[in-house]
Amino acid sequence: MPGMLNLAEIDLPLATVLDEQLEEVELILQRQVASDLSAVNALCCHIEQYGGKRIRPMLVLLSGLAAGPPPWDGSALGEKHRVIAAVVEMIHLATLVHDDVLDEARIRRRVATVNHLRGNETAVMLGDYLISNAFHLCSSLKDPTINLSLGEVTNTLCEGELLQLHHRDDCDLDEQTYLEIARRKTASLIGECCRLGAMLSDHDGSGSICRSMRSFGFQLGVAFQIQDDLLDITGDESIVGKSLGKDLDSGNVTLPLIRYLASANHADRSTTLRQFAQRNAEQLRIRLMESGAVRNAQREARYLVEHAKTELSCLVPSPARDLLAALAEAVISRRF
Amino acid sequence: MPGMLNLAEIDLPLATVLDEQLEEVELILQRQVASDLSAVNALCCHIEQYGGKRIRPMLVLLSGLAAGPPPWDGSALGEKHRVIAAVVEMIHLATLVHDDVLDEARIRRRVATVNHLRGNETAVMLGDYLISNAFHLCSSLKDPTINLSLGEVTNTLCEGELLQLHHRDDCDLDEQTYLEIARRKTASLIGECCRLGAMLSDHDGSGSICRSMRSFGFQLGVAFQIQDDLLDITGDESIVGKSLGKDLDSGNVTLPLIRYLASANHADRSTTLRQFAQRNAEQLRIRLMESGAVRNAQREARYLVEHAKTELSCLVPSPARDLLAALAEAVISRRF
Repeated sequence: MPGMLNLAEIDLPLATVLDEQLEEVELILQRQVASDLSAVNALCCHIEQYGGKRIRPMLVLLSGLAAGPPPWDGSALGEKHRVIAAVVEMIHLATLVHDDVLDEARIRRRVATVNHLRGNETAVMLGDYLISNAFHLCSSLKDPTINLSLGEVTNTLCEGELLQLHHRDDCDLDEQTYLEIARRKTASLIGECCRLGAMLSDHDGSGSICRSMRSFGFQLGVAFQIQDDLLDITGDESIVGKSLGKDLDSGNVTLPLIRYLASANHADRSTTLRQFAQRNAEQLRIRLMESGAVRNAQREARYLVEHAKTELSCLVPSPARDLLAALAEAVISRRF
Repeated sequence: MPGMLNLAEIDLPLATVLDEQLEEVELILQRQVASDLSAVNALCCHIEQYGGKRIRPMLVLLSGLAAGPPPWDGSALGEKHRVIAAVVEMIHLATLVHDDVLDEARIRRRVATVNHLRGNETAVMLGDYLISNAFHLCSSLKDPTINLSLGEVTNTLCEGELLQLHHRDDCDLDEQTYLEIARRKTASLIGECCRLGAMLSDHDGSGSICRSMRSFGFQLGVAFQIQDDLLDITGDESIVGKSLGKDLDSGNVTLPLIRYLASANHADRSTTLRQFAQRNAEQLRIRLMESGAVRNAQREARYLVEHAKTELSCLVPSPARDLLAALAEAVISRRF
């Protein structure tokens, strides 16, 4: 069970179900990316070491469980859930590999990045290989509506990344645009994980559970991105397990800085802009912590998670629903 | 009508049909990549300037025409042909944008590359946006078998690119592996263009025309790649319209060099390997030209095209079939 959750909070039979299902998801993923070329397999094996939180596949499975009928013992989960869980994880892995090229990151989850080990070219192509395999695996379900909706989500995800690149080094970035970037590049996929998981289990036909679950995942996704950006400023590299300060290095303006600049006086603003331009991570970190801007952004993430959790009332009470709520909490309490 | 073909060779009514169809394909492509974000649209407009030979959409349309019933006036071509033509062009555009990152190319079809203008990061994400949109557009056809086969082709294409990267600076690269790279990264997609175009028109049900058309496109694709690699050595930058000598700069070993090294004596081999290591483009060019290695590779491409053309005998004679043969000739006679 991924370490993002406190095991004590988890219903044990459910933990076993999730564990088994996630293992099957992992096998589907590995089978899909396996190639007859050893050069390709070596790269795929390397990124499997990244491990990771597996939050997206977990959300597909938990949403599928929680939207299904009792006794929530895993019998509501079919091969389609597991395939979709593998597809979303592959999409996520592809974006990680390409993000590492964008950020010139050298470490990802305590493992050297592909771009660092084998060059940007290989990382670009490996990311493409993962995207392509995600679509190929998704197509194997032979359900055109799923292909269409996931294609729309990946379009949106790329738009989010392009919008962020467009605003690099733009200290006039406003909160609305920052949130739009987070919604597109992160929340769209997480929302779709919850919607698809529920859709594949839910037979009420009205679609209201799917809509609520999408909304749950979407808000959770924005909170997830805010927390990611906070960890990049305040995190401990040995716990987070990846290079930090990447947003500053890349010129990405994130929520604490936006909130700080919006309320700073003229002199403080000038000093901060200079520190940003000089990539002075330590001075900026102290300023954003001491001014309360970091706490302020944390409150925003907390607010989003609270709001997301209200969407879960569409589901009948179950251990799976409780775990979705616990996962939502973990998104903002996590230190990695 | 793209300039790769001699207009005098083309049946005029057919040229008009193709022109009109290609214009509709262009509109489908533009509509698909249009975003509500101006930053994204600006990038898409930029790459539309690349123009290009449009050989892949032409092959979809011509294969569709030639496999359909008389009078080959375009009535056999439906929206599915045009959508697939747009999809394959988008896949191709995505690979161009990412290839330019791989090759650090600065000029593409006389226009500055995205990576040169806006940085590698934006080029990586724009390529992803194009791939994603290609799959999304393909999914709009709601035909799972097409999604599945195109997904398989893009998997193969990425494997070809990864195999090529794996063999960078490998002067022991043998001809078999070189051809395997060309088959995967280029021929797989071109073969699929011909197969899908024919499949969408052909109602004989046996599938033999589709198989022959795939084989035609596949062999043509390998010849296309050999010609591309030859132009990179012997081409005139002002005619080709893109940066040349990229294979040498990137350490990609191509057919003329492989054939030269296979027959050179020990001293010549040593000198050549040194020239390769030193990226001495001019000396290598002279050596490969004067030794006959370039002519030798041209003969291989010619042989493949001749063989490809025999596959066209599966089709009843028609202006469209003649144009497919002319296009096959143009693939190896082109200077850009």
